[in-house]
Amino acid sequence: MTSFVPPLRKTNPHLPFGDQRTAPWYGHDIISVKEMSRKDLEYIFGVAHEMREMVARVGSFDLLKGKILANLFYEPSTRTSSSFTSAMERLGGSVIPINEVHYSSVAKGESLPDTIRTLECYTDVIVLRHPEVGAAKIAADAARKPVINAGDGIGEHPTQALLDMFTILEELHTVDGLTVTMVGDLKFGRTVHSLSRLLSLYGVKINYVAPEILRMPAEIITELDEKGVSQAQYDVLTEEVIQSSDVLYVTRVQRERFKDTAEYEKTKDAFIISPDTLTHAKDKMIVMHPFPRVNEITPGVDEDPRAAYFRQMEYGLYVRMALLAMVLGKA
Amino acid sequence: MTSFVPPLRKTNPHLPFGDQRTAPWYGHDIISVKEMSRKDLEYIFGVAHEMREMVARVGSFDLLKGKILANLFYEPSTRTSSSFTSAMERLGGSVIPINEVHYSSVAKGESLPDTIRTLECYTDVIVLRHPEVGAAKIAADAARKPVINAGDGIGEHPTQALLDMFTILEELHTVDGLTVTMVGDLKFGRTVHSLSRLLSLYGVKINYVAPEILRMPAEIITELDEKGVSQAQYDVLTEEVIQSSDVLYVTRVQRERFKDTAEYEKTKDAFIISPDTLTHAKDKMIVMHPFPRVNEITPGVDEDPRAAYFRQMEYGLYVRMALLAMVLGKA
Amino acid sequence: MTSFVPPLRKTNPHLPFGDQRTAPWYGHDIISVKEMSRKDLEYIFGVAHEMREMVARVGSFDLLKGKILANLFYEPSTRTSSSFTSAMERLGGSVIPINEVHYSSVAKGESLPDTIRTLECYTDVIVLRHPEVGAAKIAADAARKPVINAGDGIGEHPTQALLDMFTILEELHTVDGLTVTMVGDLKFGRTVHSLSRLLSLYGVKINYVAPEILRMPAEIITELDEKGVSQAQYDVLTEEVIQSSDVLYVTRVQRERFKDTAEYEKTKDAFIISPDTLTHAKDKMIVMHPFPRVNEITPGVDEDPRAAYFRQMEYGLYVRMALLAMVLGKA
Repeated sequence: MTSFVPPLRKTNPHLPFGDQRTAPWYGHDIISVKEMSRKDLEYIFGVAHEMREMVARVGSFDLLKGKILANLFYEPSTRTSSSFTSAMERLGGSVIPINEVHYSSVAKGESLPDTIRTLECYTDVIVLRHPEVGAAKIAADAARKPVINAGDGIGEHPTQALLDMFTILEELHTVDGLTVTMVGDLKFGRTVHSLSRLLSLYGVKINYVAPEILRMPAEIITELDEKGVSQAQYDVLTEEVIQSSDVLYVTRVQRERFKDTAEYEKTKDAFIISPDTLTHAKDKMIVMHPFPRVNEITPGVDEDPRAAYFRQMEYGLYVRMALLAMVLGKA
Repeated sequence: MTSFVPPLRKTNPHLPFGDQRTAPWYGHDIISVKEMSRKDLEYIFGVAHEMREMVARVGSFDLLKGKILANLFYEPSTRTSSSFTSAMERLGGSVIPINEVHYSSVAKGESLPDTIRTLECYTDVIVLRHPEVGAAKIAADAARKPVINAGDGIGEHPTQALLDMFTILEELHTVDGLTVTMVGDLKFGRTVHSLSRLLSLYGVKINYVAPEILRMPAEIITELDEKGVSQAQYDVLTEEVIQSSDVLYVTRVQRERFKDTAEYEKTKDAFIISPDTLTHAKDKMIVMHPFPRVNEITPGVDEDPRAAYFRQMEYGLYVRMALLAMVLGKA
Repeated sequence: MTSFVPPLRKTNPHLPFGDQRTAPWYGHDIISVKEMSRKDLEYIFGVAHEMREMVARVGSFDLLKGKILANLFYEPSTRTSSSFTSAMERLGGSVIPINEVHYSSVAKGESLPDTIRTLECYTDVIVLRHPEVGAAKIAADAARKPVINAGDGIGEHPTQALLDMFTILEELHTVDGLTVTMVGDLKFGRTVHSLSRLLSLYGVKINYVAPEILRMPAEIITELDEKGVSQAQYDVLTEEVIQSSDVLYVTRVQRERFKDTAEYEKTKDAFIISPDTLTHAKDKMIVMHPFPRVNEITPGVDEDPRAAYFRQMEYGLYVRMALLAMVLGKA
């Protein structure tokens, strides 16, 4: 299915030759953070920081004027979809929104590669959200234009992982030496898995706070152990852990994960963050959350300057602007 | 829930300081027409008239280039949604359409303030349509960016009220001294309530023509009485009323409002406008309708130059252009 | 219902007078290819070819900057909708996507003419996809702005027919003298009917290859006979037919068309194109398909340079760019 795809590096006839040589990410797909090096991250975050400064100064600018993004969402995600749309529009580009895939030719039985090869006839870059693991890779193999994975089921969601890292970096100005505490559902939470892997590229200490049935998977702990990351597990969020944390990364604990409701009721309060929780936390620490939240962070926390979760979404905009500019050869 | 919101006036870091001082509506929300003064209306209609002239001359222009609108519709309204999209695009801005909220994180249980605070990370202004009364106020309290109410249930729909007034003004060049006749369902019709209140700022006479069970609510009549507005009620649209009217504002009488079908059948013809209805009407009067219509104005009336209901929708575009430019500090 | 429409030629106040005189398609609707002459096609394809060259050179350009397209789809078609959106955006214009008509005021019972007259208040051109035959004509009669038919049920889909012809012309540099072989469901396939009619304007030979119950309708064969087109019918795709073909136009044979499953199973393989099918085909022939495909062309064919079906979609972009520019007086 992929043998017709040009090898290695895709080409863009609209890019001047000089740009092609000096744009190292030009034509690349963004499918996974697994293979990314610390140097890769630093490059991405450097561009994202420039995007942040440009938006603060002028709001929007015409770096991608005339470029078109196919925003192809096989499952709904207002947040991610809006963020990519805004990223493209703030760079002066246009968007074709394709949100209703259940009504489209996909419903008529068309294969994902055919849909991708159709859309690339009309666009310059494709953002794909799909419920099945591996869909982004299949799309990228079929496409001549760059594909950015906006989440493929329980697979990868690289822009979320990158924006989480970028948030820490922009808020705390470094990652090395930090203590990051992850709270909630660490077993099924895709974001904490990816974040752990990216953090392992830096010198950090990670605390995992989760009920026993929702602990961080053993293979990730082993993987990070081998890289020399200092890790610790907790059943509840203790005062000591909070006081030592530079980052508190909160995820939702879903009742449905528990067979025993009593067990859920017993433990859930240990995973809800309220203003009280932060009383003795550091002044410069931050609270993050991949959103949407339900009740795992109370609204009272929103007023605390350490609540970084709305700024986190804004950082997501800059990361996506950076990636779009990079794969289109403009950064 | 709203204590984290900056007080009084929102700020926009992208606006030069000079603009902020000279743009009186800059950063404001548009939630209701209830508090608007005649001076407010005159300012809005002055800008809207300029927009009309600019569109006639050049079609579109780049006043809001680089600005992004979140067009957030929790219930469908093609007309209002398209009108705001067009308004933003004719001003050179971009739009993020969010029409499928039933698929979005709202469906996952996210609160309206969280959704709003997410979207303002990506955009410069938010237009909100929501089925619940008071939703626009909640959104505006949560938001740092301006929010424009595009209808919240049986609550307010300020841009409809404004476009109705602007239509009268542009078509008849004044409001003072006019006789405005409202026909149809005056009890449940949100538009006629808002329009009555706005008309009370001018020296008008208002006729209400409705079946007994669909009469204008007593509190509105009392409110306008206290302001000295001349009002009269009728059960049917008489020849005398038509001949005296400068504006005939028609709304739909829905069969479902009647317990007794015979009662409906008996009265409905008195509320259908046909070319015959207008035989003895003034030459310069206008027929308006908030649309969609079903059968309450027959298609034969469309050819009459006094049929202003399609022009009315076009005036809505200019009012929305004006409001977007104003709250973004560009008018 | 249509008597209020200005006669003959629509006018656009935004177009300078000089442009109006020199833009022969300015203000016209594109409803059907039935009345198009060879000269019309040559004009359209000339503009489309220029669009192709401009896209290859600069990607996008601002020919329609400030113009707004209402992309009104009463039934889903990701391919056609995306293609028109891209066409408008590559020309610097904006799009109002209206895909969820089942949620819109149409669902509230609004007539198509009212919807069209509403949308033209906000836009400069309307693209309409509708499930009912004749809908595009009704819309065009109601509209003052140009309407482009993007498919009305089993009626017409003129931009598909035009892109099919344009594909042949761009790929093979001529149409005269070619042998075009149509394969599959020729009875219900709207595209092959329109294509046959357009081919009849040139000197071609047409082979029809279909199971007996899905043959090309007699009235089309008669119509083309009268124009002197050489036609032949086949039950299966023979080696001789393939070897003589310059164009192999494949359509889907749907199982549901057959009362007798055994009959379907017996014949279907004769209508599936694989790499083997093309072994003895000409070097310069092309394989086309209106898409989506299911299994009637195997993925192995995609690698063959004669597989033109993805390029065919790209040619569709250029044809739609051409038509938008033409009816807006810019080409």
